[in-house]
Amino acid sequence: MIEKLALIGIGLIGSSIALRARERGLAKTIAIATRRPETLAEAQALGLGDQYTLDAAEAVRDADIVILCTPVGSYGSIAKEIAGALKPGAILSDVGSVKAHVHKVVGPLVPKGVHFIPGHPMAGTEHSGPSAGFAELFDNRWCILTPEPDQPLEAVETMKAFWRALGSDVELMDADHHDLVVAITSHVPHLIAYNIVGTADDLESVTKSEVIKFSAGGFRDFTRIAASDPVMWRDVFLTNRSAVLEMLGRFLEDLSTLQRAVRVGDGPALESLFTRTRAIRRSIIEAGQETAAPDFGRPHGADTKTEA
Amino acid sequence: MIEKLALIGIGLIGSSIALRARERGLAKTIAIATRRPETLAEAQALGLGDQYTLDAAEAVRDADIVILCTPVGSYGSIAKEIAGALKPGAILSDVGSVKAHVHKVVGPLVPKGVHFIPGHPMAGTEHSGPSAGFAELFDNRWCILTPEPDQPLEAVETMKAFWRALGSDVELMDADHHDLVVAITSHVPHLIAYNIVGTADDLESVTKSEVIKFSAGGFRDFTRIAASDPVMWRDVFLTNRSAVLEMLGRFLEDLSTLQRAVRVGDGPALESLFTRTRAIRRSIIEAGQETAAPDFGRPHGADTKTEA
Repeated sequence: MIEKLALIGIGLIGSSIALRARERGLAKTIAIATRRPETLAEAQALGLGDQYTLDAAEAVRDADIVILCTPVGSYGSIAKEIAGALKPGAILSDVGSVKAHVHKVVGPLVPKGVHFIPGHPMAGTEHSGPSAGFAELFDNRWCILTPEPDQPLEAVETMKAFWRALGSDVELMDADHHDLVVAITSHVPHLIAYNIVGTADDLESVTKSEVIKFSAGGFRDFTRIAASDPVMWRDVFLTNRSAVLEMLGRFLEDLSTLQRAVRVGDGPALESLFTRTRAIRRSIIEAGQETAAPDFGRPHGADTKTEA
Repeated sequence: MIEKLALIGIGLIGSSIALRARERGLAKTIAIATRRPETLAEAQALGLGDQYTLDAAEAVRDADIVILCTPVGSYGSIAKEIAGALKPGAILSDVGSVKAHVHKVVGPLVPKGVHFIPGHPMAGTEHSGPSAGFAELFDNRWCILTPEPDQPLEAVETMKAFWRALGSDVELMDADHHDLVVAITSHVPHLIAYNIVGTADDLESVTKSEVIKFSAGGFRDFTRIAASDPVMWRDVFLTNRSAVLEMLGRFLEDLSTLQRAVRVGDGPALESLFTRTRAIRRSIIEAGQETAAPDFGRPHGADTKTEA
């Protein structure tokens, strides 16, 4: 239990932290700061915190843990705003999907005596905003922390305990390695999903209404990812460029080989790849990171519109 | 209600047809033929039909409707086997994911007096085999029929009524256009999913255990599709080559543009695409082809392994 938690930004991740922190009594006071008054009013209407302000510096004053929950592109200006208001001994953390960039941009602005422990919870849905959060979001998911080796062990342990109390498993990782891992497990999948949904949207030979009607054959799975928050994902690709381009390059090399197998009709090569890929899904299910129910356990036979 | 329905092949689709046809009394007798004795024994143990045989010609004798439910690559040899046993006035259909190839290979083998009404139910899960089927699979999904214009209206109407009774909406389409529609809504999404799962499996810089642990950021959605039946999908890519290569070409053109936007850091271009793609998902949900629940309604906070 800490005295005060400050959340700067209150979208899907911020609101989920607030809900679980409240539920489990992790902080006596939860202060919430946003840039836009409408978002703050929404958070207040939802009762997500105890203090609400448009002034990030005011929110972080006296806070034991401060977590940046805004798109990564805004970190630099927020860090400048709050730096002078952070109390000695406070922990500054974040939930951004890229980490090397965060160290580079925020690291130099962190005052002496404040402990900088960047983090990335590997959890989310395609929905965004303060009303999208729920307390169970982090259960059974991994949160990666990427502190520099010079940070005090005690501060690292506090953040590990905090994320475990939120429901996560925690792993420490070097920021550069983190960025490579998420490039393949998250960033390139998003790029590809956004891309194919865009391609389908642009066709003349197949109408948009046909794409929509006949989407159950695979396409609709991609649209979930391609419905993720546009600004957050813009910032991810602007700030994890080299790891994304590296992994995308490998994806494209492999796709050239596969394209050739289709062109020349190489049945054994196709079947061999399609057999090998089944094993990874089994492992993900065994690791508790996915449901084993067919079709993600989507409702069948019901009116899917009413399932929300 | 027809006298006899013959299902050649009894995987996910065949068994789902059998279960719903039984439930709704669509046929007095359901005959099931498979090539492998183990599959036949499994179908029999599940009680999916009334007659079980390893001889496809025996299964189709006296049948009013015969549906090929095997991978498309086997259609030629099955059509040769059964042609002589089909009764005059019978309807021969199928559930294959490609249609022009089916017309080309099976069409010439269909005896005079037998009506050839190829079909493609746009429904499925990543599971395969006789035990993967369930009666609700076709509810609210589309089935596309691609008869040649010279087929009798009555036979076409019979198949439309049959699929509606199974739970589907039905649409008639030209076979070539069908193949283009599914290339973008189903075949290229599968190719891309298989490809990225293969890429992730081959990396040295990121371990397989990291890919599995941290898959919740997007990657695991692709693994569902990449767990689909390898032989069925091999045959799809061998028999819908030109439409797949056409759509893959467009996907790759768009991906080059997107790759460049990442490389040069073109934020507005990224945000514009990422915003546009949200609309398609909304339309798919409004069309009743997808659940609106976050994360496909996946269970959160529960042990996902036990949800099957």
